[in-house]
Amino acid sequence: MEKVEDQNPQQEEDQVVNPWEVSAKDGGKIDYDKLIDKFGCQRLDQSFVDRVQRLTSRPPHVFLRRGVFFAHRDFNDILDAYERGQKFYLYTGRGPSSEALHLGHLIPFMFTKYLQDAFKVPLVIQLTDDEKCMWKNLSVEESQRLARENAKDIIACGFDISKTFIFSDFDYVGGAFYKNMVKVAKCVTYNKVVGIFGFTGEDHIGKVSFPPVQAVPSFPSSFPHLFSGKDDLRCLIPCAIDQDPYFRMTRDVAPRIGYHKPALIESLFFPALQGETGKMSASDPNSAIYVTDSAKDIKYKVNKHAFTGGQETIEKHRQYGANLEVDIPIKYLNFFLEDDAELEHIKKAYGAGRMLTGEVKKRLIEVLTEIVERHRRARAAVSDEMVDAFMAVRPLPNMFD
Amino acid sequence: MEKVEDQNPQQEEDQVVNPWEVSAKDGGKIDYDKLIDKFGCQRLDQSFVDRVQRLTSRPPHVFLRRGVFFAHRDFNDILDAYERGQKFYLYTGRGPSSEALHLGHLIPFMFTKYLQDAFKVPLVIQLTDDEKCMWKNLSVEESQRLARENAKDIIACGFDISKTFIFSDFDYVGGAFYKNMVKVAKCVTYNKVVGIFGFTGEDHIGKVSFPPVQAVPSFPSSFPHLFSGKDDLRCLIPCAIDQDPYFRMTRDVAPRIGYHKPALIESLFFPALQGETGKMSASDPNSAIYVTDSAKDIKYKVNKHAFTGGQETIEKHRQYGANLEVDIPIKYLNFFLEDDAELEHIKKAYGAGRMLTGEVKKRLIEVLTEIVERHRRARAAVSDEMVDAFMAVRPLPNMFD
Repeated sequence: MEKVEDQNPQQEEDQVVNPWEVSAKDGGKIDYDKLIDKFGCQRLDQSFVDRVQRLTSRPPHVFLRRGVFFAHRDFNDILDAYERGQKFYLYTGRGPSSEALHLGHLIPFMFTKYLQDAFKVPLVIQLTDDEKCMWKNLSVEESQRLARENAKDIIACGFDISKTFIFSDFDYVGGAFYKNMVKVAKCVTYNKVVGIFGFTGEDHIGKVSFPPVQAVPSFPSSFPHLFSGKDDLRCLIPCAIDQDPYFRMTRDVAPRIGYHKPALIESLFFPALQGETGKMSASDPNSAIYVTDSAKDIKYKVNKHAFTGGQETIEKHRQYGANLEVDIPIKYLNFFLEDDAELEHIKKAYGAGRMLTGEVKKRLIEVLTEIVERHRRARAAVSDEMVDAFMAVRPLPNMFD
Repeated sequence: MEKVEDQNPQQEEDQVVNPWEVSAKDGGKIDYDKLIDKFGCQRLDQSFVDRVQRLTSRPPHVFLRRGVFFAHRDFNDILDAYERGQKFYLYTGRGPSSEALHLGHLIPFMFTKYLQDAFKVPLVIQLTDDEKCMWKNLSVEESQRLARENAKDIIACGFDISKTFIFSDFDYVGGAFYKNMVKVAKCVTYNKVVGIFGFTGEDHIGKVSFPPVQAVPSFPSSFPHLFSGKDDLRCLIPCAIDQDPYFRMTRDVAPRIGYHKPALIESLFFPALQGETGKMSASDPNSAIYVTDSAKDIKYKVNKHAFTGGQETIEKHRQYGANLEVDIPIKYLNFFLEDDAELEHIKKAYGAGRMLTGEVKKRLIEVLTEIVERHRRARAAVSDEMVDAFMAVRPLPNMFD
């Protein structure tokens, strides 16, 4: 039996994690073990990493081998089926609420690109412009504009156009997709969504109506132009763990309407520069590195705002070493420095006080600048025609090749 | 200020009238004056009947001159604009929950056909197959099948294909229509729909999501293939008064999202054969005359089941006459016997005891049989190709001619 414990942020709780709020107890760190326990998902242990490596014959992604993607639901079923020669499809998405993405936003896309390449499977990417129109009170037009802008950043992550369908809800809701929305909505009571998402009576009904919209890309029949006649195809959803409530609901409903439960592979939150107390805040530009930041911006933000575990004075630092547990430069390098040996070396030297905070920050600035510059170049190469092409409702005849 | 008093059937009330329940107090008659007062609509008085006759240069429909359509919202604005040379469009609909329609179902369509012909205006007809799938727990496929079957009955009422677009929600929701759904949903809180429709926490979220679907055909921008560039076009909705809650909500929201409030013209309920205590019941086939009934069925139902105001014995009847207030044959003739003089004569003679119940029933059987036979012939002539043509998403270049 799957554990589906509802979370109601109205109640006094240790920590709150839902799609709109991530906050730890008393401003502390998110307790991911507790979250796994509460949500009822499974920890992704080393055996999965090894198995993925074996099945795909390539080194596991840094996010996998370093535990950035740390939890899952039924990922084993996906791998079992894959081992038997059955493919699956990937589903991820983004709520287009801002012009510029920060590095935290890129994480599921970078990882999804790796999964697409490694498993050679198709991918659907949902841009929930309807959600942002409703939650952020953006106009329909502005939400649609942001969806297209964000699509460029997503495409810049390198997805294979012959295997990838990007859609915005305002464009795509209708037909088979809408029918699945109705099927899901029939199976979920208002009390249930209140339990899962914490809505109140003063919330508008757009919010209450939305969960089925994010649920149904989990079902292949929502995409007849891609998966017609493939109703048995399994779905794997890479996402940050704050999206788990949507898919707990989806998994609860799926067997009642004759569909497979989607599998999930879920990531930690990317910490803010100021310290690991939750997700980054769009309202504070200094809390995150944006893909639009210049080399100068990155240098300034890391040097000025990155919370570190280094000691107050060089003498103390040499004596006690850095506290890696709270050190943001180390955490960021853990996400983005691909060289395992170099990361190990830095952690050892920094933790022992042989390496100074300034040196670690300098290396982080190099790493981040390279990623952001590379992203900027890739995004500049994404034309409007490419966006149209990725978002065209079309068959993908070679999606399993 | 428009009066928008919410109705909550959870509370103890004199009578309950909403889209899913019509029941009078203690099994009595619906008090329409009270309903007008409660809903905050206006009575449609003789001045409107005269004005419609003058503006359209044709005799007012029997449903208009006999008060079957008895209430309205802003119908005067529609007529003012029409007098200034501004056209409008009509919007009506049906929830396709059953194969065969009864005469009560035909009333809004018969009247809408008259309005279309008299004012020479376009018409959109919504088949809420999604609603019935959710409320009646029908499968998507069965709801869609019923929608097409019902479309044939609707087309058989004689609508002008060059001015009429029929759509089912499962086919048509999406695009501009879905954008308007989101705009409406943003403006309505859950508490508000509970107040208007009486939903409870145990109702599924499909119900909570539905009111915007029925709201948005009131806005011309939901039909870009018909009304592109005509955002100012007004909408007139002929419907039974139990649909008023949807449009109270719609009218409340419309100005907040930059649209005209739709106008309404609202009918009484067509009474059951057993007496005027509400709408007819789909679960009791003897409570209504169906368009599929044979001449024999009609004769049997009227003779056996029609509640009358005649006296127990011929002697008493000759002495006291019939009680026309409760007499169903008279009420049905009031709807369907077009000849005013004959109706007057029957009412006088029957009320005075000169005419017997059997004679009135005989005349009613003739009238109903003719209507049903005519409908059956018209429906038999409706091909699948005609349904496709009425339901095709297409421009209607001559819709205002």
